[in-house]
Amino acid sequence: MTLTVTILGATGSIGRSTTDLLAQHKERFRVGAVVGGRDAEALAKLARETGARFAALADEAAGPGLREALAGSGIACGAGEAAVLEAVGQEADIVVAAVSGAAGLKPTHAALRLGRTVALANKESLVCAGAAFMRDAARYNAKLLPVDSEHNALAQALGEGAVSDVAKMTITASGGPFRTWSTERIAAATPAEAAAHPTWSMGMKINIDSASLMNKGLELIEAHHLFAIEPDRLDVIVHPQSIVHGLVYWRDGAVTAGLAMPDMRVPIAHCLGLGERLTIERGRPLDLAAAGSLTFEAADEARFPCLRIARAALAQGGAAPTVMNAANEIAVAAFIRGEIPFYGISDLVERACTEFASRYARAPDDVEEALAIDAHVRAWSAEALPRMRAAG
Amino acid sequence: MTLTVTILGATGSIGRSTTDLLAQHKERFRVGAVVGGRDAEALAKLARETGARFAALADEAAGPGLREALAGSGIACGAGEAAVLEAVGQEADIVVAAVSGAAGLKPTHAALRLGRTVALANKESLVCAGAAFMRDAARYNAKLLPVDSEHNALAQALGEGAVSDVAKMTITASGGPFRTWSTERIAAATPAEAAAHPTWSMGMKINIDSASLMNKGLELIEAHHLFAIEPDRLDVIVHPQSIVHGLVYWRDGAVTAGLAMPDMRVPIAHCLGLGERLTIERGRPLDLAAAGSLTFEAADEARFPCLRIARAALAQGGAAPTVMNAANEIAVAAFIRGEIPFYGISDLVERACTEFASRYARAPDDVEEALAIDAHVRAWSAEALPRMRAAG
Repeated sequence: MTLTVTILGATGSIGRSTTDLLAQHKERFRVGAVVGGRDAEALAKLARETGARFAALADEAAGPGLREALAGSGIACGAGEAAVLEAVGQEADIVVAAVSGAAGLKPTHAALRLGRTVALANKESLVCAGAAFMRDAARYNAKLLPVDSEHNALAQALGEGAVSDVAKMTITASGGPFRTWSTERIAAATPAEAAAHPTWSMGMKINIDSASLMNKGLELIEAHHLFAIEPDRLDVIVHPQSIVHGLVYWRDGAVTAGLAMPDMRVPIAHCLGLGERLTIERGRPLDLAAAGSLTFEAADEARFPCLRIARAALAQGGAAPTVMNAANEIAVAAFIRGEIPFYGISDLVERACTEFASRYARAPDDVEEALAIDAHVRAWSAEALPRMRAAG
Repeated sequence: MTLTVTILGATGSIGRSTTDLLAQHKERFRVGAVVGGRDAEALAKLARETGARFAALADEAAGPGLREALAGSGIACGAGEAAVLEAVGQEADIVVAAVSGAAGLKPTHAALRLGRTVALANKESLVCAGAAFMRDAARYNAKLLPVDSEHNALAQALGEGAVSDVAKMTITASGGPFRTWSTERIAAATPAEAAAHPTWSMGMKINIDSASLMNKGLELIEAHHLFAIEPDRLDVIVHPQSIVHGLVYWRDGAVTAGLAMPDMRVPIAHCLGLGERLTIERGRPLDLAAAGSLTFEAADEARFPCLRIARAALAQGGAAPTVMNAANEIAVAAFIRGEIPFYGISDLVERACTEFASRYARAPDDVEEALAIDAHVRAWSAEALPRMRAAG
């Protein structure tokens, strides 16, 4: 039976890895809809190459360009939010939800409401509205499969085991480019230094989050929702080689771990296989003897306050992670623009968390509420920035 | 529901770890029969402490001593082969088969024929008569759960996954005390040097097997039978810290691994839990940050020819592993007595494998045939030893 796969965020890094895999398994998969952001040419090329039936861009203004680029292809297309939701509504067995940022919430949620099997790569869905997403996944009988290498490793290490038998789940952090740096040196770090990720090749925003360890904080929040596990049974360990991605510590002292070379096609293949294993051509199999040594060290919340702040937000629950994530987006963008120093990121995020702690205590009940909180905190954070700089 | 556990090899190391665990979970388990070798006092004490219903010693001559030591306890007892089989015949939900050596074959097989769930710690059952054991486990609907840390880790890493989806299974070797030694130094090693195992505390025979890596060869043979996986998908890697015990490499590039501190109670608990996880009091949880570094290196079959010989026997199949194991037993005993040098072990084993390659090509059809081959090869090996020394 051929499975139809729809890809939200098709022109991004996860989308590209997905189409590479699908092309290797044409007997098994066909592409349903592909959704991109604003690059009409790239999406049109991808849609033609993959034989997609529908192509949509989030940016309404890019619609005419897309229509032109797809002229004569027979591929239906559209642009803007309604077109994206129309793409999600196309028949599909699996939806790869890899739109990045808050923009991914609505289409991802729409796929859940249709009861689709969703391979989830959009962090914000669970960070900003985790309770609502998990509730609706259960309500609409949708399956959520984690694409993130850490959560995918946890899912593989957990297997059919019961979370009640788990003593602890641990995700690993590469430690980022500042792993061995002093607080003083980190304080003076430039955006270029922060973006130099040691093991993964990713976008700028996520590289900065890796440098601050906020990325691991966000992943703890995701793991909490995905596996229905309490914050105090979740942990981070620094593992510079990025080969072990997640570990499940069982009550009896046994530990199962998920390992792989840093290649996003591995967790994507695990999701797309739906319990069977797909082969990956041109994959680099793990060679532990060649790796030689896997090292581990405790994560340092003093030098990396974002991890401490994220753990606090996770422990507080409610909308604290929503607030934190919005402030972090604004702070990281300001850091990239050179407007604030590296520790300005954690400063702003912590201020926002304090500012909104009582106002947004309750978890957002739906995507709309999460997006409203997100917008409010972003606006507040943007206004707080110049005041911070003036005071700083 | 209380589960009844019978322990074969109750006074040995695995037996002790098992009774320690059972004592921690009295609400869940009671002890059925306990079987020892010849130490009447130790077995009687254990039977009284655990509230066993039946106690048996393999050594018939130790019977009177056992009866005396159990007088007034109300615990039935006996000695000799019939008594051991009577112990196996007692009602039990789980049989821990931890009699060491060829002596373990008959009682372990008897438990299988009764359709018991068998927690298997006796290596020889699968090494000497693996095909017959697996056939009869299926025929009598008995479940085989691996107690060995390596196979237990593989079972946990495999989970509900299909062996057809596995690219490779790897077990780890500590590398033994000679891991970093030159061939010349190993050639001159004393039994005391060979018995100094770096990470596990075990018996003398198994320590020598660890030093020669024959132990890993035997474990590859066991894994082949336990998981119905071909020899060329089985591998050994040296990992001196003995924290990762087994790894399953999936076709998609993902790897799941089983880890634990070196504590036999961990795999035993996994077996006894029957899918649920038991807590272990006074266990030492794995702390990767404290461990710091896990290292891996290729196993060197030039310095450790026993591994090469075992892989060849596994590839050859039939009774080759039975022959190899018998010769190894005699050779290790001779090395311990100081009669042959360390490489005399692999020399004798290889000679035996060559000698019997065509004569015992077919896999033994039952335990009796395996034991007959075992006895024949032992006798031949004992006779070959003086000739080897004279020629040496």
